[in-house]
Amino acid sequence: MAESDSEDLSHVVARVRERIDPDEAEQTALRETAATLTSRVEDELAALSVDADVLRVGSTARGTWLSGDRDIDLFIRFPDDLDRESLERYGLAIGNAVLPEGHEEYAEHPYVVGEFDGFDVDLVPCFDVDDGSSLRSAVDRTPHHNEYLTARLDDELAAEVRVFKRFLKGIGAYGSNLRTQGFSGYLTELLVLEYGGFESLICAAADWHPPVELDPEDHGSRSFDDPLVVIDPTDPTRNVAAVCSAENVARLQHYARELLDDPRVDLFFGDDPEPLSAEDVQEHVRRRGTTPMAVVFDAPDVVEDQLYPQLYKSIAGIESELDRRGFAPIRSTTFAADRAVLFVELAHRTLPNVARHDGPPVHVRNHAEGFYDAYADGDTYGPFLDGDRYAVEREREFTDAAELLRSDTLFTVGLGSHVEEQLQEEYEVLVGDEVGGLAETFGGELAQYFDPKP
Amino acid sequence: MAESDSEDLSHVVARVRERIDPDEAEQTALRETAATLTSRVEDELAALSVDADVLRVGSTARGTWLSGDRDIDLFIRFPDDLDRESLERYGLAIGNAVLPEGHEEYAEHPYVVGEFDGFDVDLVPCFDVDDGSSLRSAVDRTPHHNEYLTARLDDELAAEVRVFKRFLKGIGAYGSNLRTQGFSGYLTELLVLEYGGFESLICAAADWHPPVELDPEDHGSRSFDDPLVVIDPTDPTRNVAAVCSAENVARLQHYARELLDDPRVDLFFGDDPEPLSAEDVQEHVRRRGTTPMAVVFDAPDVVEDQLYPQLYKSIAGIESELDRRGFAPIRSTTFAADRAVLFVELAHRTLPNVARHDGPPVHVRNHAEGFYDAYADGDTYGPFLDGDRYAVEREREFTDAAELLRSDTLFTVGLGSHVEEQLQEEYEVLVGDEVGGLAETFGGELAQYFDPKP
Repeated sequence: MAESDSEDLSHVVARVRERIDPDEAEQTALRETAATLTSRVEDELAALSVDADVLRVGSTARGTWLSGDRDIDLFIRFPDDLDRESLERYGLAIGNAVLPEGHEEYAEHPYVVGEFDGFDVDLVPCFDVDDGSSLRSAVDRTPHHNEYLTARLDDELAAEVRVFKRFLKGIGAYGSNLRTQGFSGYLTELLVLEYGGFESLICAAADWHPPVELDPEDHGSRSFDDPLVVIDPTDPTRNVAAVCSAENVARLQHYARELLDDPRVDLFFGDDPEPLSAEDVQEHVRRRGTTPMAVVFDAPDVVEDQLYPQLYKSIAGIESELDRRGFAPIRSTTFAADRAVLFVELAHRTLPNVARHDGPPVHVRNHAEGFYDAYADGDTYGPFLDGDRYAVEREREFTDAAELLRSDTLFTVGLGSHVEEQLQEEYEVLVGDEVGGLAETFGGELAQYFDPKP
Repeated sequence: MAESDSEDLSHVVARVRERIDPDEAEQTALRETAATLTSRVEDELAALSVDADVLRVGSTARGTWLSGDRDIDLFIRFPDDLDRESLERYGLAIGNAVLPEGHEEYAEHPYVVGEFDGFDVDLVPCFDVDDGSSLRSAVDRTPHHNEYLTARLDDELAAEVRVFKRFLKGIGAYGSNLRTQGFSGYLTELLVLEYGGFESLICAAADWHPPVELDPEDHGSRSFDDPLVVIDPTDPTRNVAAVCSAENVARLQHYARELLDDPRVDLFFGDDPEPLSAEDVQEHVRRRGTTPMAVVFDAPDVVEDQLYPQLYKSIAGIESELDRRGFAPIRSTTFAADRAVLFVELAHRTLPNVARHDGPPVHVRNHAEGFYDAYADGDTYGPFLDGDRYAVEREREFTDAAELLRSDTLFTVGLGSHVEEQLQEEYEVLVGDEVGGLAETFGGELAQYFDPKP
């Protein structure tokens, strides 16, 4: 059984590789374009009489890209004794010269992004630091990562990386952006290196007991609280998997088992679900008997890595506030395009007027007397005794969750700062069937919500 | 301040005593009737040529009765070597001769109860055992208790006992029957003895930190789990306060503080609340915004000490089942006359069709695979991931609490046995406003429920 599964898996991997391995023509085109770009940058450096070297980094430099990816990353590495201002100035000057149609982006410092011969090119200046632990800017790590991997990934291992990367994409766990909180490219390559190939990695992951702690260079110098810890071979203080959420680790484990149990190509190429219509959404709500609510507002004008953590924080705050007040949230989600949506589905839209509130044990005299005196003359029911404690039933502040979401209490739940600013401007609350209207823009997201998968 | 409170308390106690101390005429009448009864019993014993003595026991034997109480307890104490059958036969023969209008009751063995000169008389046969730890029947303890207390309670302490007893009655904590689960007469007297008087007992109780452990004879030979432990001076293995609930201990503590804080006579003579009408009940329900439900059935034909524990067990079972299933009970109660009522007030009569069900962490492979496989092909929503765990949303068995109470599931909640038998015969479920109809019989109980006090 294991034998035949294993054979099946090899066939599946072979079929996946047919679809993702870049062919000779693609490799040649990429190599030639990268060479052209490199010499243009070198020409600019010579013109400026600056001493710097040009490095190809990223998946297309290491043969780990998937067919069709069109990203070329060139790093311009300046001496460590250069001041930051000059680095930025040189970096932009060269970038704009080589990619005159490009535009500037900004991470820790500005760099130029543009198209060249049909490829998406990043031209990034960095400092030539000794190792990953003496960085001057976050991107200074990249050449070290590149060097480490290039020395270790032969063609066969690079192919295994491509398969694993495609698998992670298929199951929705690829990408270290803060929306996905999945596996970064670098992490993907380190894992394949560590386990020696895709299949052995999959077999291992199926049996992981987080926290999983890997340290390829055996030099880790601190501990981490994350479910997956992979100490950066170029920096003993860094967990390469720090961004990877417990859910994405679990997702990999789930689909690793699924793949071993029933190997099939479609796991590598997950289909987006059919978007729902407004009527579909309403039919789901009717079938579930719940009350969905959505806070809808203009998406703050910030990058996704700022937006999504704020949306996650905001919806978690809303869900826990509604839970604390008894509206029994069942699930929640958030999505954004031009408008952003904080979506929560409640077991109860409305609650009784009274809420039970338990007091201290009667024998804790100070607290007990304080509690009793606080409620004795109010219009609560009680205080009365329940076992050895006081209890009262007092009036609820909100008996309707929609009222809560429309009140200032919304601003006390721990919203993300840009979300809060935007909500202060304007927002609307959709209740029950009204959320059907979201399907026009977010039919795909709602399809995932109403047919949730691992 | 404490000084003046203390003076106030003395005045209050004096005014209470005016109302509860039996006057000379009452004492004389009681003494004479008891003497007449005693000699009649002795005559019967002589006629039967049985060697036994006659003892007056209980509060009227010790001067601890409250004015108006009309109970005379006479024990006929037979030698320890008598067989039980003869004891029962003699006991009933003498009882029926002395109280020809009386009737037989049955505790551990039968005894005769009847009226005599306007007094309620119990004539109880018992064995003359050495001490409380070598009983042949539960009532054999009573003469030992009586002897212990009689030797220690002088007139002044007896008066203090009366005041404490009246206080416990006023706050609803007097009586060791299994409906009240409060303080027995014997416990009341031991506590006054232990603390030397009513006021010092009240001061102490206000500051109790349960478990409170008292052992007047310092001979306790086992430990107890109860909030109040008073080792029986006549039996080192018995907690006299075993029946006393944590709630009644807390009740005494609460009202002890109340009395010290604001001494007043009305605490000793609690008024029954004005019974509610059906409309009053419905107005409360409307104001509270809840859904009360009542299971109503013929009260099982058993004594109260059997009935109430079964009612308490049954309503606790119903409340916890409804809680477990998400109907969010707020409070419950039970009461009985010809019909018995299991009453529970819910935050929600109805629930959504789906209920969240959390599974194991994905990394616990065996459990996780079992959970996933169990739900993967069903019509649940999911399984999906929530953090490192699987979860599903599955269809609820009951979305309406009334349906649950009308179904066989009612019989799975741990009903008392006689309650269960009766429910198998017939019951009805009242929902919402329909519970107003209970006010006709239980208006007083419902008044307590809807205006709960410590």
